[in-house]
Amino acid sequence: MSQAIILFAHGARDPEWAQPFERLRAALAASNPSVMVELAYLELMQPDLAAAAAALAARGATAISVAPVFMAQGGHLKRDLPQRVDEVRATHPQIRFSLQPAVGEAHAVIDAMATHIAAQALKQ
Amino acid sequence: MSQAIILFAHGARDPEWAQPFERLRAALAASNPSVMVELAYLELMQPDLAAAAAALAARGATAISVAPVFMAQGGHLKRDLPQRVDEVRATHPQIRFSLQPAVGEAHAVIDAMATHIAAQALKQ
Repeated sequence: MSQAIILFAHGARDPEWAQPFERLRAALAASNPSVMVELAYLELMQPDLAAAAAALAARGATAISVAPVFMAQGGHLKRDLPQRVDEVRATHPQIRFSLQPAVGEAHAVIDAMATHIAAQALKQ
Repeated sequence: MSQAIILFAHGARDPEWAQPFERLRAALAASNPSVMVELAYLELMQPDLAAAAAALAARGATAISVAPVFMAQGGHLKRDLPQRVDEVRATHPQIRFSLQPAVGEAHAVIDAMATHIAAQALKQ
């Protein structure tokens, strides 16, 4: 099996907005050298999910886990993203796709945010 | 000094979207019982920053750290939020306001996201 991850973010007009996602990609790649990691965006930035999936298919991915890098699950993750995952599933039937919950909902992530925010506030 | 934190999130139409921010607020309150913690939203949800600041002023806050619970810094955090912080500063001159960077840019938060996403992908 050749595992891949697509980090799926919202996208923004400001190119600097992508920097934390690039850093997240680098952190994942560094700690999981056998896993292919690509970014994809809902809107305003490239590539979109279809282009990221096609790139990973061309590199031989057999399983792709789509990880929404969102703080919470709203309409984008409840409706738009599952539709897009269904579309890439139909385009790449040889690849097993799975869809993670919003990363911002994970307990460990919430704990890390709480610790960081409290430390910043106490530095005030 | 009576320290407070405002967790500033984007807001969404779906009421369930607020749940991770409520959990973040609870985590912060549990580990920092002497710090007042309020949520505020940019749009689509209540309260906004002005209402959250007024509530904290009424509870005697003398320092408020505004923590943007965003994955990255785009136009909302570069332009809209500093303007709103200036407005609440003008309304509450007795309170010292400070503005944190987007929490999603913190190294510890990126590391926690990377660890969680990799674990989810390997469970696939």
